[in-house]
Amino acid sequence: MPTSASQSPEFENRTRASFGRQEVMRTIGAMLTRVAAGEVEITLPFRNNLTQQHGFMHAGIVSTIADSACGYAAYTLMPADAAVLTIEYKVNLVAPAVGERLIARARVTKAGRTVTVCACDVFALRDGQEKMVATMLNTLMTVRDRPELNG
Amino acid sequence: MPTSASQSPEFENRTRASFGRQEVMRTIGAMLTRVAAGEVEITLPFRNNLTQQHGFMHAGIVSTIADSACGYAAYTLMPADAAVLTIEYKVNLVAPAVGERLIARARVTKAGRTVTVCACDVFALRDGQEKMVATMLNTLMTVRDRPELNG
Amino acid sequence: MPTSASQSPEFENRTRASFGRQEVMRTIGAMLTRVAAGEVEITLPFRNNLTQQHGFMHAGIVSTIADSACGYAAYTLMPADAAVLTIEYKVNLVAPAVGERLIARARVTKAGRTVTVCACDVFALRDGQEKMVATMLNTLMTVRDRPELNG
Amino acid sequence: MPTSASQSPEFENRTRASFGRQEVMRTIGAMLTRVAAGEVEITLPFRNNLTQQHGFMHAGIVSTIADSACGYAAYTLMPADAAVLTIEYKVNLVAPAVGERLIARARVTKAGRTVTVCACDVFALRDGQEKMVATMLNTLMTVRDRPELNG
Repeated sequence: MPTSASQSPEFENRTRASFGRQEVMRTIGAMLTRVAAGEVEITLPFRNNLTQQHGFMHAGIVSTIADSACGYAAYTLMPADAAVLTIEYKVNLVAPAVGERLIARARVTKAGRTVTVCACDVFALRDGQEKMVATMLNTLMTVRDRPELNG
Repeated sequence: MPTSASQSPEFENRTRASFGRQEVMRTIGAMLTRVAAGEVEITLPFRNNLTQQHGFMHAGIVSTIADSACGYAAYTLMPADAAVLTIEYKVNLVAPAVGERLIARARVTKAGRTVTVCACDVFALRDGQEKMVATMLNTLMTVRDRPELNG
Repeated sequence: MPTSASQSPEFENRTRASFGRQEVMRTIGAMLTRVAAGEVEITLPFRNNLTQQHGFMHAGIVSTIADSACGYAAYTLMPADAAVLTIEYKVNLVAPAVGERLIARARVTKAGRTVTVCACDVFALRDGQEKMVATMLNTLMTVRDRPELNG
Repeated sequence: MPTSASQSPEFENRTRASFGRQEVMRTIGAMLTRVAAGEVEITLPFRNNLTQQHGFMHAGIVSTIADSACGYAAYTLMPADAAVLTIEYKVNLVAPAVGERLIARARVTKAGRTVTVCACDVFALRDGQEKMVATMLNTLMTVRDRPELNG
C-alpha cells in the first residue's frame, strides 16, 4: 500500500523534506500547509514570544515565513539536483500582524534558468476573517553543482 | 549613586525599554549592543535552532535583527511621545549567514517628519573576521496620537 | 450635451489632468490608456531613443511608466484635495523590454490613510503576444495641506 | 601621442563605450562624469521636459541615472567578455528632485561571481549645495556567453 509521501509528486516530497530541515520553522512553530507546482503556503499560529514592542508579530517573523514560502514555491519548479538561495526580497507591512494565525501564500511570478521571482501575500486570520498584513517580492537563485547545499 | 541608565541620554533609555518589550528578541537571543543618536547595533549569537535547510541563519532571522536595528535607529531621533512602525524594507543576502555571531549595524539615512529611511549592514563574525552577509534599506513611519502603541 | 470628460467620474478627470502635467510622459511618448477606481494603465510605444546598450528599453524608463501607473492608481482613491508622492519602489526586470509597445498595469494593493501600496506589472506587446517584462511594488504617500503640490 | 582613452584603464574604456551606446542617456542629457574601479558617477542637468506633475524630476528619471550608475559600477569589475543586466532595484525618494543638476554616485557593495549588489545615492545640486534626493540598492547579474549582449 503506497504511503502518502509516495503518492505525492516528486517535487512535493523534495519540498517537504527540505522544509523539515529548516530548524527555524520548528522553533517558531510554522507549518507547510500547501505545496503545489509553483505555489506554497506556510501557516504560523500566533505566539507571544515572536512579538515586537506593540504585541504584533515582528516584521522579521512575518518575513521569515514569507521568504520560505517564496523559496519553496520556486523550489517546486527546479531540477531535482538544484538548491535554492534567496538573493533578496522586499516586503511591505500593510497592517498589524495580529490574529489567531498568519498564512503566507507564495507563487512563482517568473521562473528563469538562473533567477526566479516570486510574490507572497501574508494574511492574518482573526475571528474567521482573513486580512492582508504583508506583501513581498522575492528574488531567488537556482544553484547547481554545489553538493554541500542539500536542497 | 546614579545608575548606568540614569546617565544615558533620554533617547537611549526609551530605546532600551522598547527593545526590552520585543519578546522576539529574547526568544532568538538578540542583544542591543549599541545605541547612539541615529545609530543602533544589535548582536545575535549563532543558534542552530534559527537555521534554514543548509545550516545558515535564515534570511528572515537576519532581517529580524536588521529591521529592529533600523527601527530603533529611527526611534532615537523621534519625539518622546511617538511610536515607530516599519512601512517596508528590502534586504539583499550577499553571503551565507554563518559564524559565531551576527552583528546588525543600522543608521538613519534620512529622518523626515513622517517618513524615515534607514540603512543596515549585517556582518557575520567568524574566527575574528567580520564579513558582510546582508544589506537592508528600511522605510519607517513616525506614529503620533496612538497611545496604544507604546514606543 | 455632456462632453466625454463631464461623463467621467471625478477621479478620472483629476487623474487625466495630473497626467497631462507630467512633462516626462510627453517627452517619452507615454499615454494614459485606462483609468478606473484603484487601477491605471499606461502604454509606451517602443522608441530607439529610450534604449540601453543592448537595444532594450532602459529599466529606468520601464520604471517611469510603472511608477506613474502606481501613483495614479493610488490617486484615483484619494480625496480631491490631496496630492500623491512616491515614497519608494522596488522593481524586478524579468525579461528584455523589447516589442512594439510596453503596457504598465497598476492596481492598489492596500489604500491606507497616509500610506498606499500598489503593484504594477509591465508587459511587452510583440507580434500580438504580451510578455511580462517587469513587476513593481510601490509605496506612496497621501499628502494634504501642501497647496504647492497640485495633484 | 596616446589619446586620452588609451591612457585610461581598460575597464574605463569599456564602460565609456557601453555608456555611449545607451541612447536614453543622450535623450535625457545624462553624462558619465566619473569611472573608477567599482565606482561610477552620472550627472544629469535639470530639464523641464523630464518632470512629474509638481515640477520635480520624475522618480523614474532619477532611477534611470541611478540604475545606469549601479550597472556601470558593477561592470568596471567584470571580465572583459561579460555583459551586465539589472535583476532588480529598490529606490527611496527622500526629497524633491529639484536643482541645477542631479548627481548619481554608485559603488559596488558586493561583487559576486554571478550576482553583484550596488548602492547609489542621488544628490541634487542647488545653489552650490548638494542634498540627497534618492538612495538605491541594485542587484545585477554578470552575463557570459551571450554574444548578442555587447557589454
